[in-house]
Amino acid sequence: MSTQTVTQPTTKTVNGVNVTALFETIDAVKKDQELAAFQFRSNNHWIDGGHNRSTIQSFYGCRNEDSTRSEPFMLDADEPPILLGQDKGANPVEFILHALAACLTTTMVYHAASRGIEIEAVDSALEGDLDLRGFLGLSDEVRKGYHDIRVKMRVKSGATPAVLKELAQFSPVFDVVSRSVPVKLEIETY
Amino acid sequence: MSTQTVTQPTTKTVNGVNVTALFETIDAVKKDQELAAFQFRSNNHWIDGGHNRSTIQSFYGCRNEDSTRSEPFMLDADEPPILLGQDKGANPVEFILHALAACLTTTMVYHAASRGIEIEAVDSALEGDLDLRGFLGLSDEVRKGYHDIRVKMRVKSGATPAVLKELAQFSPVFDVVSRSVPVKLEIETY
Repeated sequence: MSTQTVTQPTTKTVNGVNVTALFETIDAVKKDQELAAFQFRSNNHWIDGGHNRSTIQSFYGCRNEDSTRSEPFMLDADEPPILLGQDKGANPVEFILHALAACLTTTMVYHAASRGIEIEAVDSALEGDLDLRGFLGLSDEVRKGYHDIRVKMRVKSGATPAVLKELAQFSPVFDVVSRSVPVKLEIETY
Repeated sequence: MSTQTVTQPTTKTVNGVNVTALFETIDAVKKDQELAAFQFRSNNHWIDGGHNRSTIQSFYGCRNEDSTRSEPFMLDADEPPILLGQDKGANPVEFILHALAACLTTTMVYHAASRGIEIEAVDSALEGDLDLRGFLGLSDEVRKGYHDIRVKMRVKSGATPAVLKELAQFSPVFDVVSRSVPVKLEIETY
């Protein structure tokens, strides 16, 4: 950190976030809203039964195809034995909870940094309730996904829970899960 | 597989899914709907900046706390450099695409198995469009999460795309993303 201060004397870091760069990004987007258009991508390959693997590497943002990732992230999903899998990875609905926790945390930390609010620790516990009758097609009245998700975050900070909650709710994944997103699904066979 | 066939001569497997066990599950849930109540969980710990880690192990289902996982799944999330992270993992909105692809694939494969439809290969490509102005709080008219998600699945099977699409749409994560889920967010500080 001291080296960074010497070589970039104007860089300010709060909560591990380069706030100088964050404000530069905000200013740039205010002047040119096309910089805000991002596209994220994932490719998935089925392996067997409940086991499949996603490859995540390229994305578009700030008018550019990103080229900083030399290797893709590989993510395996599977189901536990009771759901007829071999447990070679967390299952898809568990990945939703991970995505939600990660996004609420990062969003809180970034927005706190932008306001000069220091955060020393964040730990969260998530639960998602799901009635398997929806997936199994046994009832039209039971939804297929989670019917309730609970997130408990424990934050070491001088800010109030109300302020931290306001900051966390800028989270894109919180928005995706708590509001609907149009999903266009196309299938071709060969 | 041959050992299993010898010891359980009635086990039928389609697409890597034990269809005998699948039908047993369906029959059991029809008789006792409490077996269908599942709860999945994730704990997340903030590391620094955009970097955090989820630990996924326990879950509840079929009237039992699962005890088959001897080790938790550890999942790191981060942001790429352009989003002020150090790229130590896929980012939260990329995990959403992984969860969606994995769930659509597993759901299609399981439901196809239950109908005796053989699937030889599934590959999918997902794109999610997001306008960063929502996250940055620069516009009330721009949502924070994805405004559109596209899924293209390529399936090697004798079944028609229409049938496969119908099967895939039993997916719990498709339901979570394309419909809203109530998320209860509680924050405490110390």
